[in-house]
Amino acid sequence: MINRHRDNPLLTRSSLSPTRPDFRVVGVFNPGVARVAGDTILLLRVAEAATPVPGESAACPVYDESTGILARMGFPADLPGLDLRDPRIISSREQNYLTSHSHFRVARSRDGVRFVIDPEPAMTAATPYESFGIEDPRITEMDDGYYIVYSSASRYGIVASLAKTRDFRSFERLGVLFPPDNKDVTLFPGPIDGRYFALHRPSHSLYGRPEIWIAESPDLRCWGHHRRLAGVRPGHFDSGRVGASAVPFLTDRGWIEIYHGATPENRYCLGVLLLDASEPWKVLARSREPLAAPEAPYEKEGFFGDVVFSCGCLRDGDTIRIYYGAADDSVALLTMDLGDLFDTLVPVEQEPNRSTIE
Amino acid sequence: MINRHRDNPLLTRSSLSPTRPDFRVVGVFNPGVARVAGDTILLLRVAEAATPVPGESAACPVYDESTGILARMGFPADLPGLDLRDPRIISSREQNYLTSHSHFRVARSRDGVRFVIDPEPAMTAATPYESFGIEDPRITEMDDGYYIVYSSASRYGIVASLAKTRDFRSFERLGVLFPPDNKDVTLFPGPIDGRYFALHRPSHSLYGRPEIWIAESPDLRCWGHHRRLAGVRPGHFDSGRVGASAVPFLTDRGWIEIYHGATPENRYCLGVLLLDASEPWKVLARSREPLAAPEAPYEKEGFFGDVVFSCGCLRDGDTIRIYYGAADDSVALLTMDLGDLFDTLVPVEQEPNRSTIE
Repeated sequence: MINRHRDNPLLTRSSLSPTRPDFRVVGVFNPGVARVAGDTILLLRVAEAATPVPGESAACPVYDESTGILARMGFPADLPGLDLRDPRIISSREQNYLTSHSHFRVARSRDGVRFVIDPEPAMTAATPYESFGIEDPRITEMDDGYYIVYSSASRYGIVASLAKTRDFRSFERLGVLFPPDNKDVTLFPGPIDGRYFALHRPSHSLYGRPEIWIAESPDLRCWGHHRRLAGVRPGHFDSGRVGASAVPFLTDRGWIEIYHGATPENRYCLGVLLLDASEPWKVLARSREPLAAPEAPYEKEGFFGDVVFSCGCLRDGDTIRIYYGAADDSVALLTMDLGDLFDTLVPVEQEPNRSTIE
Repeated sequence: MINRHRDNPLLTRSSLSPTRPDFRVVGVFNPGVARVAGDTILLLRVAEAATPVPGESAACPVYDESTGILARMGFPADLPGLDLRDPRIISSREQNYLTSHSHFRVARSRDGVRFVIDPEPAMTAATPYESFGIEDPRITEMDDGYYIVYSSASRYGIVASLAKTRDFRSFERLGVLFPPDNKDVTLFPGPIDGRYFALHRPSHSLYGRPEIWIAESPDLRCWGHHRRLAGVRPGHFDSGRVGASAVPFLTDRGWIEIYHGATPENRYCLGVLLLDASEPWKVLARSREPLAAPEAPYEKEGFFGDVVFSCGCLRDGDTIRIYYGAADDSVALLTMDLGDLFDTLVPVEQEPNRSTIE
């Protein structure tokens, strides 16, 4: 039984103020999740937009790497080739931009439902690879702290980068993990047989599709042994693209990965992969039907509607709390029993990447 | 003074036979280069095509990962959405394919000009990531053997993979180094301050362009610390895309990287980057004018015309021999003095990636 919390959405754009009076918050969504001394911590993605002035057809905040400031960029109304059909993207002939610019803000809660949001951002764009903002943090707790993998876009593409914190007050950046375009990266919690593992999602390929790959690392910084793990499935909820969502957690049946799958029409659902405990590049089972699909009004309507998208969950015994972004707009909470999650799984034939060279 | 060898092109499609009577060789080009016991070794990219039968508008060889054989794939004449305008690509609504399928063949020479080609392929497609063929090998000599990085395409995208040989008779595969889409990867010869370095070329980004990045590794298998190294330059010969070409070699001024740059109209030239000897992520100088541009008839006309594309060079004292693919069709040779190469270099302002987090 999957339960949407009765207080959903827990956090909305009206829950916090913009960082500048001339910006407006257009979404609070896709939070990373961690447990710190019994509290639930959300690392919120806060998206802000700029308002066009007369003579402009669009505007957006852009981090300027040469000055180190977040600047307002306006697009003249008569700019040739401007395409604004996707509410997320400002497409011009020379360069694509994002309509909004995201930073991270910490929210803290004792009960996992009522959150207090820090007044100041936790992390904001600060490198040339982050000029269009930082997005979709996944938080993995390791022995020596919390590791955060996040996406960022810039004129150099979409990359996945690593940061580390012990207290969610100061954050250390540790560089770009995967070259462009790559996003939806999540680290397994700790090494398996001496090697770290990550799920990642290479995208915008001339021949391939946006699918889930797995990589290995000796040190969390350098990654190799790339293998395709799970692909799109024609005719299913995940026919257009798939990517890792939550940080994997270990059960007595194997690793549970709550992933997202979308149709070509951009309906985003959650699904489940069961991966082998000691050889996580082996997919043992997968949900045929979505674990969660956009059904509630706050999931169907919003900044970008028809989206249920998670970056993290917490396990309390047999209860799973999935925090997620609803419609690229707000933060909501689903709870379920571990058994409900297993019930969605269907054993899968081995994927064609099984013949990969080790 | 840049000299095209008077025997150019040195090797052409008529220099060898196809691997099957129903295939035909459509190009011998983009060879990797190595020196073995005084001999010059070329690892040739040999491209083969299949002929459509009546009722088909196109056909190509495809390695079938489930059976392990190289199969002939035919495309019905009435297939909706088929696009054959690019002679290199069969584009259909669901999946892109390559019109030709490449393998590697060894050619050996005492004088570097007259080559004897092995009768059998050295490496052919053998993994799910190689089903559309293997391409553009770059050979780096290290203390323990020759490391070959090559591209391959499949329905999973374009990846760069590693192989190793000691004798150019047996080859060991060492896995995928960079996830899709990535190509034009070349390894520096040996570690610098204990770390290995590679140039690579992420491509097909939603926001970025096909440009040269640099990465670091502790073990040649796992790669991180990705940084953009050199970008496209509007108005220059390399305005559309740039990628590493030859394996870098060290001079008393720094690392020389002979790279390729193309216009959006796909005119491929060679250029030169001078990288700092101990911090190779710093670009010290770059050629403003191409080192070599398609001018000879065999460079201007061929399977894909207007292309000069190198995967390797050899240095004999102050003489540089650049072996290159001409028009995706044949193998040719340019020689020049190191001084001529330096003469093309112009000091560059530091690229905007200099503020990268270390």
